[in-house]
Amino acid sequence: MELKIIARIYTDFDEKFGIPRQSGICKGTVGRIVFEKEYRRPEALRGIDGYSHLWLIWQFSESVRDDWSPTVRPPRLGGNKRMGVFATRSPFRPNPIGLSSVELLGIEHTVEGEVLVVGGADILNGTPIYDIKPYLKFTDCHDDAMGGFADGVLDYRLEVDFPNELLAKICESKRDALITLLSNDPRPSYKNDGEQEYGMSYAGYEVRFKVENKLLSVTGVDKR
Amino acid sequence: MELKIIARIYTDFDEKFGIPRQSGICKGTVGRIVFEKEYRRPEALRGIDGYSHLWLIWQFSESVRDDWSPTVRPPRLGGNKRMGVFATRSPFRPNPIGLSSVELLGIEHTVEGEVLVVGGADILNGTPIYDIKPYLKFTDCHDDAMGGFADGVLDYRLEVDFPNELLAKICESKRDALITLLSNDPRPSYKNDGEQEYGMSYAGYEVRFKVENKLLSVTGVDKR
Repeated sequence: MELKIIARIYTDFDEKFGIPRQSGICKGTVGRIVFEKEYRRPEALRGIDGYSHLWLIWQFSESVRDDWSPTVRPPRLGGNKRMGVFATRSPFRPNPIGLSSVELLGIEHTVEGEVLVVGGADILNGTPIYDIKPYLKFTDCHDDAMGGFADGVLDYRLEVDFPNELLAKICESKRDALITLLSNDPRPSYKNDGEQEYGMSYAGYEVRFKVENKLLSVTGVDKR
Repeated sequence: MELKIIARIYTDFDEKFGIPRQSGICKGTVGRIVFEKEYRRPEALRGIDGYSHLWLIWQFSESVRDDWSPTVRPPRLGGNKRMGVFATRSPFRPNPIGLSSVELLGIEHTVEGEVLVVGGADILNGTPIYDIKPYLKFTDCHDDAMGGFADGVLDYRLEVDFPNELLAKICESKRDALITLLSNDPRPSYKNDGEQEYGMSYAGYEVRFKVENKLLSVTGVDKR
């Protein structure tokens, strides 16, 4: 089956590095979904404002490959343990389809048609969207779900030291989200490599940091 | 993007009529996911047994169309009110992709490779599967989600009168699920059309019934 791109989502994530590994981890990140011309029909959204959350089905656009590997190494397991691809949400899958639930914050009427404003999207800027569905609590929410290694995900939180003079360089409305992103440890895998400096792009800024034990220290901020 | 079929799901639903409109409504329905030869690799499932629930991304194989309509008429609204397609889970969408959460009941080792046995699948027998992902409670479960008309879905339950002599014709392991399916009102829309007889196929049986007010009466059962 050939999928049609119905929309694109515009976010503050210009690079893969630093994107939360699941949606909703950083609720402060705001994305805007702009429909392609053919799908720019206000009536296609009739009733959507009655929902607080939506599903997005989208393309892992930086992970499209011809071949596939039956196993992947999830970053949350340190990057050196192999798991079955269907037991993970890795982008490297036979069909590079992403699934994210986001919060519907509002609908804007713009020259590009109705734009859905959503919160918590863990998605690269400009990513193609294939489908948008309402989140239905009675069928989508499983309180009793059990979930392997992902259950322990909160253990990975870092303390963030963001010096005031560097934080002042960041536009105020982006600060909380950025700190949350950093506290979720954007590094590709877990090492206590205090000397290595990482660079992460967010909302037009380049943010540099180091991590030692459970403390992330921001070392520099530049406009990109 | 061209999607590859990675597996097919085999269920007791040989016809679209009678399939629950969302997954999990009838937990007693059991499906078996058989991988296509290319994807029949046991290591691709490594770790999946640590999860209680899975997401399936699949093709609405009976709803593939070249064109699309921005609005649809959800059966739960009586079939005469139009809603935006992106505000519904209707199969008639620009990309006919279905999304269902199912319970992982077990993994069978068979001559067709590892088979995932799942509960609650609202999916037609033989449906192509494009992706399988673990259900992650911390990111997929939104207790606080609000949801338009679908919130009232339980109001549509029917009482079921299944005469003993007819029930006896049904294999015992299929009875509970069938009664749950009937109680969820499989009719395409809501009418108090006491005279009309409907026929529904399930698990190799043809079940006939009528509905008057909130009572569904089974009128006949045949082996198909």
